[in-house]
Amino acid sequence: MRAVDIIMKKRDGGELSREEILFLIGGFVAGEIPDYQVSAWAMAVFFKGMTPEETAALTAVMLKSGKTIDLSGIQGPFVDKHSTGGVGDKTSLILAPLVASLGIRDPMMSGRALGHTGGTLDKLEAIKGYRTSLSVEEFRNIISRDGFAMTGQTKEIVPADRLLYALRDVTGTVESIPLITASILSKKAAEGTEGLVLDVKFGSGAFMKEAARGEALAKSLVDTGKALGLKITALLTDMDEPLGNKVGNFLEVEESLDCLEGKGSSDLMEVTLELAARMVVLGGKAKDPKEGRKICEAALAGGKPRELFLQNVKSQGGNPEELLKMRGNYRSEFTADLHAEKEAFISRIDAWKVGHASVQLGVGRNRTEDSVCPTAGVEFHKKRGDAVKKGDRIMSVWAADKAGLDNALPMLAQAVEYSLTAPSARNLILKEIS
Amino acid sequence: MRAVDIIMKKRDGGELSREEILFLIGGFVAGEIPDYQVSAWAMAVFFKGMTPEETAALTAVMLKSGKTIDLSGIQGPFVDKHSTGGVGDKTSLILAPLVASLGIRDPMMSGRALGHTGGTLDKLEAIKGYRTSLSVEEFRNIISRDGFAMTGQTKEIVPADRLLYALRDVTGTVESIPLITASILSKKAAEGTEGLVLDVKFGSGAFMKEAARGEALAKSLVDTGKALGLKITALLTDMDEPLGNKVGNFLEVEESLDCLEGKGSSDLMEVTLELAARMVVLGGKAKDPKEGRKICEAALAGGKPRELFLQNVKSQGGNPEELLKMRGNYRSEFTADLHAEKEAFISRIDAWKVGHASVQLGVGRNRTEDSVCPTAGVEFHKKRGDAVKKGDRIMSVWAADKAGLDNALPMLAQAVEYSLTAPSARNLILKEIS
Repeated sequence: MRAVDIIMKKRDGGELSREEILFLIGGFVAGEIPDYQVSAWAMAVFFKGMTPEETAALTAVMLKSGKTIDLSGIQGPFVDKHSTGGVGDKTSLILAPLVASLGIRDPMMSGRALGHTGGTLDKLEAIKGYRTSLSVEEFRNIISRDGFAMTGQTKEIVPADRLLYALRDVTGTVESIPLITASILSKKAAEGTEGLVLDVKFGSGAFMKEAARGEALAKSLVDTGKALGLKITALLTDMDEPLGNKVGNFLEVEESLDCLEGKGSSDLMEVTLELAARMVVLGGKAKDPKEGRKICEAALAGGKPRELFLQNVKSQGGNPEELLKMRGNYRSEFTADLHAEKEAFISRIDAWKVGHASVQLGVGRNRTEDSVCPTAGVEFHKKRGDAVKKGDRIMSVWAADKAGLDNALPMLAQAVEYSLTAPSARNLILKEIS
Repeated sequence: MRAVDIIMKKRDGGELSREEILFLIGGFVAGEIPDYQVSAWAMAVFFKGMTPEETAALTAVMLKSGKTIDLSGIQGPFVDKHSTGGVGDKTSLILAPLVASLGIRDPMMSGRALGHTGGTLDKLEAIKGYRTSLSVEEFRNIISRDGFAMTGQTKEIVPADRLLYALRDVTGTVESIPLITASILSKKAAEGTEGLVLDVKFGSGAFMKEAARGEALAKSLVDTGKALGLKITALLTDMDEPLGNKVGNFLEVEESLDCLEGKGSSDLMEVTLELAARMVVLGGKAKDPKEGRKICEAALAGGKPRELFLQNVKSQGGNPEELLKMRGNYRSEFTADLHAEKEAFISRIDAWKVGHASVQLGVGRNRTEDSVCPTAGVEFHKKRGDAVKKGDRIMSVWAADKAGLDNALPMLAQAVEYSLTAPSARNLILKEIS
């Protein structure tokens, strides 16, 4: 077998066998196949795609490149959620304790903020003392006790993905649906979950700007997940505007607590409940999403999810009492308010602009080696559909430094769009792909 | 400027600027841009192509990566021919002295045999003592005296092409028309020619199997050559059957002498004269190809081209008298004849099969580091259109060793196709692209 023949087969639209994918990508991870052949192959995949069988084979090869989490001995069902990333998306922090309260175990391995989208680990680390690099033993123990645990990927988990992503990042091959699929699913399969609900976002604040591309990714994820034996479904959700009223690290922890106390904004609760409802269905606790949602709403009202969240904070090194005391006052010192420019309706708040402004504020990072600020961010007092008078406060802004605040404010002002009539209602959940 | 942005621009169908191509390929040659980015870019070029302006910019960057031949002080015009390679193609050996006899200088840098196609340098080196690695000073002197010189490329000529080709060869990006174009034209521009006639071959024995692909390459070569300021035209010629009656190294030198003495086979003379006629036009010695051909035919009949050929043999280290004495008897010892299997017409002799069989005989090489045998090859006694009786001798075969002969004979037998009626006449010159 020769790598060049495998590259040419893909280039000419052929379907690669399991053995060919193992030879190329297994060889790459082992240092036997050079990066210049893998990058040419990745570009051929960009143009020619992969079948669900090929994508499943690639995912399996990547998964086997490292260690996987062994959850045996812990009572399931194990169901996780994965989002393709957005602005203000803190649904993980709400739905993990929510479904845990219903007897579903969520072994959640998350990522960090990069570019304009936030990362669950950065948000959780805004809680003083909270540790996101758990040992496998700690991860198992906390899932067993709290029903869920939140950790980062260790270097032993899917090393192939780190190698391949680093190469894709510099060779223009990130935006390939089968390669994205294998990257996501190899990491999710490694954490030991049995069921997976995908939140595939589209719109200005999402990785996929167009709904059609989002749908293609959702379909690839679902088809490949099934080929790997996962219980899987995907929601295609709108990420054209920030989700919820707060964007930031500690700010989003606060808003998650608000939601767990029944005070969440309607858009955030809608997406969270629809995702959680499907986790409940995949976990076998409801017959359909409608019933799942009812069960979730009842659980939230009962207060158990909030209790589990605070219990997890304690399990992972934080102090729940201190966290509750800091609500509403743990903020960066460089602050300003943004006001309405005229009497009008707010017709849109552009998620992409808010995301990029929040990187300036210190919420996110442009390079993986940058650190983030826990206390920076944006709180929206008005959102799409709200009528404003000139001078009404639309948002409050906190920045890690003065320069960041100065850079972000005009970007945030530009993110707000106005109209003379009330905009139509947003349909947050475009469709389910399963 | 970032390489990844250039890759993505090409991937998405954009046209790269001169500066972007210089940054990427100039950087690659300088060791600043890694091979994994260039291979991903080459694959994107495979799918998205390049405009003539982009291809000309790439050719110019490649050309500038090394030294070029300075022909100043020598009286022109300088006109060369380049063939995309075929089986039995020895036209260079005939037309260089032919056009030189008409006052046109041909600064010919040639390549070696690889795979199933022959190489001019290997043929010339079958002449005892003939040197094909001339210094620039020798190259200039011999052109000045004989009107033409035949040499190989030194390492200082277009090093970018060697680097880029080595990468393309292992990344499935050889078959890209703009990349082939830049490779050919950068080397031809480096030798200092002003005019260039291209022989773009199609058919089983050619690199391009289909006429349409050959035509696309011819068009790319002509458009790019014009953008570089070359006088250029291309003939699209049939390489479905071997050209002439002999395939081999010394065998083809012999056949070239036959042609220079007016005893050439009609197919070989047709292609040679049509190419030479256009060299004469580009050199300003005839108003159109028809007139050019007449001038060439008259020149051949006058005997001057044969004289110049033998003079060049002497100039480059060979012994013309010895060469003439060796005609017809300088052959490998392992030999056999192949006979007709039945009474029929020969409807086709497959160039691809003859080419691969001749590699077995020792005429060519599969790897650049292999050596070739000067005395191996095939002589055709019958060709397409000839009526044969069972047992008639179709070809004589000479091999460097017994195993090669045993391997080649069945391949050569399979190369011969029969029909009950006479096949239609071949149209060797499909069209001119200029």
